Amino acid sequence: MDSITSYIETNKERFLNELIDLLKIPSISADSAYKNDVKTTAEAVKTQLELAGCDVVEIHPTKGHPVVYGEKIIDKNLPTVLVYGHYDVQPPDPMDLWDSEPFNPIIKPTDRHPEGAIFARGACDDKGQMYMHVKALEYMVKEQKLPCNVKFMIEGEEEVGSEHLADFIKANRDKLQNDVILISDTGMIAKDVPSITTGLRGLSYVEVEVTGPNRDLHSGLYGGAVANPINILSKMIASLHDENNHITIPGFYDKVEELSNEERAKMAEAPFSLDKYKASIDIDAVYGEEGFSTNERNSIRPTLDVNGIWGGYIGEGAKTVLPSKAFAKISMRLVPNQDWQEITQLFKTHFENIAPKGVRVKVNPHHGGQGYVTPIDSKGYQAASKAYEKTFGKTPIPQRSGGSIPIVSLFEQELKSKTILMGFGLDSDAIHSPNEHFGVWNYLKGIETIPWFYKYFTELNN
Amino acid sequence: MDSITSYIETNKERFLNELIDLLKIPSISADSAYKNDVKTTAEAVKTQLELAGCDVVEIHPTKGHPVVYGEKIIDKNLPTVLVYGHYDVQPPDPMDLWDSEPFNPIIKPTDRHPEGAIFARGACDDKGQMYMHVKALEYMVKEQKLPCNVKFMIEGEEEVGSEHLADFIKANRDKLQNDVILISDTGMIAKDVPSITTGLRGLSYVEVEVTGPNRDLHSGLYGGAVANPINILSKMIASLHDENNHITIPGFYDKVEELSNEERAKMAEAPFSLDKYKASIDIDAVYGEEGFSTNERNSIRPTLDVNGIWGGYIGEGAKTVLPSKAFAKISMRLVPNQDWQEITQLFKTHFENIAPKGVRVKVNPHHGGQGYVTPIDSKGYQAASKAYEKTFGKTPIPQRSGGSIPIVSLFEQELKSKTILMGFGLDSDAIHSPNEHFGVWNYLKGIETIPWFYKYFTELNN
Repeated sequence: MDSITSYIETNKERFLNELIDLLKIPSISADSAYKNDVKTTAEAVKTQLELAGCDVVEIHPTKGHPVVYGEKIIDKNLPTVLVYGHYDVQPPDPMDLWDSEPFNPIIKPTDRHPEGAIFARGACDDKGQMYMHVKALEYMVKEQKLPCNVKFMIEGEEEVGSEHLADFIKANRDKLQNDVILISDTGMIAKDVPSITTGLRGLSYVEVEVTGPNRDLHSGLYGGAVANPINILSKMIASLHDENNHITIPGFYDKVEELSNEERAKMAEAPFSLDKYKASIDIDAVYGEEGFSTNERNSIRPTLDVNGIWGGYIGEGAKTVLPSKAFAKISMRLVPNQDWQEITQLFKTHFENIAPKGVRVKVNPHHGGQGYVTPIDSKGYQAASKAYEKTFGKTPIPQRSGGSIPIVSLFEQELKSKTILMGFGLDSDAIHSPNEHFGVWNYLKGIETIPWFYKYFTELNN
Repeated sequence: MDSITSYIETNKERFLNELIDLLKIPSISADSAYKNDVKTTAEAVKTQLELAGCDVVEIHPTKGHPVVYGEKIIDKNLPTVLVYGHYDVQPPDPMDLWDSEPFNPIIKPTDRHPEGAIFARGACDDKGQMYMHVKALEYMVKEQKLPCNVKFMIEGEEEVGSEHLADFIKANRDKLQNDVILISDTGMIAKDVPSITTGLRGLSYVEVEVTGPNRDLHSGLYGGAVANPINILSKMIASLHDENNHITIPGFYDKVEELSNEERAKMAEAPFSLDKYKASIDIDAVYGEEGFSTNERNSIRPTLDVNGIWGGYIGEGAKTVLPSKAFAKISMRLVPNQDWQEITQLFKTHFENIAPKGVRVKVNPHHGGQGYVTPIDSKGYQAASKAYEKTFGKTPIPQRSGGSIPIVSLFEQELKSKTILMGFGLDSDAIHSPNEHFGVWNYLKGIETIPWFYKYFTELNN
């Protein structure tokens, strides 16, 4: 695999331009207005998988957005790597906070990326990281170095909870058979501190609706005498955390995995500067659950965040209205052993119970997924660790991520194989935020590292 | 004045059509996109005042929307009535709750208005009620029955706090000299229960902004470790009321006028059905300050309502974002003796004080006005009372309103005259709500009653 570095050197302009073309398509899965763009993106991914050397590439329609499947089988007796990624992206808003157009990618240097970073929605999450695997395959095929079989499953609904992927997987268990699942949809600690994500948080996402009077009312004539849905919703949301920022939903913590002091001590060894952390997002203090560090709060502890709230008059100027309805989108990040459907039900029951007289409350479960932990003694982890050692010259640190890839636990359940999370992004890449970007160095480093994983994984399976 | 009934009978079609033309112009003062429509409405009012018989009609530009001034002076030694009204309207949204177009008026019957009601934004508040005075003048001039002098001051910023009217009044004190100010911008208890509004609540309207991190963050990677502005804003709003729904802002109640048990007992005599009230807005229970009745809560007690709230992702589907900012529009209804500027300052100080570390809070005062109480032994009140007796056959009930006409207390201060609030609307007219309407019967009854006020007020001043 040593020729990978020269191959990248020769082709990097093309690697960047192909990714930029992919990033130009606004594949926003959450917004039905972009349904056709999502489809166009799936077709672009299919084309690139064919060009990279897959023998079979298929677009599988689902009840939602399509799944792109590709494969290159060289010998049924060799191990098979299943690459999972997604070609859909988060909505770009708030638009006014972008310094450049979210779907008109530009490359410019940043403090962390002096060699330049690609700025676009999806640059890191996940088009850029997914495409590293396509280019790694291209190298191994063109240079006859592919040591095992490879399959690709690239979906278009990850940002909306992979609603229909389970159906696809259950319907295609044999086709998807593999020895390890490889995903690049996470980050690493720093460019000089490689890490492999060994844990993910689960997710429960709900939308709530509080209804008071049957129509908007004049806040002068009715104010003070009728429950105001916004005041009530605020009260209800506020009550979901106690004064120590523990979540108050009965039973919420029952199954939460408690880490040993030894494990927590090991976590605390990961390089981290609270001052740099606060400075990077311009806050004067962190905020969270009593008794846990920042890195614990955003990885091994469950959370409850309001992701959106709206109600009443939100236009220019003033309107003295007592609104009929108020709404909120609320998501809970869950840790291993918490079942997302059980937590969703606990939330629903509790939220309906705390509604005062005078309002009606609806809780609409949106989507969710289980948390995940991968063992570090597996062949997959060992192969990945060796690959990083080869290209970074350092042993990667196993790291719990606060993010969720709801589908990972389903893979294990349905396909009986472990997932390895080789992420090359940085926390500062602003995924899900305005000005999302992906370092050119990181992109190329990913393409360089992935073939070594194939090599070592195949060797470990001999 | 007895010929007024036949005059109305002869001209009522025209009276309705002229009002409908006025209602077609979307004079939304809160939204700068409608600036020209507001101007067009001012010109239409000017034309109608000229046609009705004013000798002088002027449009006075302000830093905001213009004021229309008109007068008919018949004898400097006779008393002068100053009519105040407004030609601007509330924003119509939420549009999807309107059964007909807000600016395409239609007349249809309702349970309370079997003779039909005009459905349009501004039908009751205040184009319809203001226009009653124009038509009453037309009658008195055409039939040579005008017993005194009359002046009109019709503004275009009432729905946004009459921001620039004070400047106009201070600059035109002599021009506006009068013996009584007459306003129809309130309601009466029922068609068979005439009432005169003797009190109005004051108002303080603010907009708050809570800022956490300097950009939207991924709720998985940062959730639980960083203050979420929506969670925080909800907590802060919730804390503004205690468990008895008393407002918790220090000093908020210091100057609140406490009514005697006798006064409260008198108020309680006004016909009121809690069941009908709840049924009319489809709620299973009322909600408000411990220790006060519904009619007290919405008239003699101060309140705090969130009129609008927004933050994070409010589009279709799901976005797992920890937003940078959250916003709310909050208004407080105040009672006589509470100073709106002092209350605004108390709110600002308190709200900034309760902000936790990790967020920054901005409070932007929007507008406000003082509460008002008018004595029932004044000549103005007596004349109004006799006018209702004449046309309704019943003595009107003095009634406190929960609404605000911020400018009324300024009139007394600057022009040294009392205001009489002769309102002909009903609580069910849905002002500030979708499907605002004004009963045809109420509209014509107003036109019929107003001339009698002029007659009795002139007689009482002889």
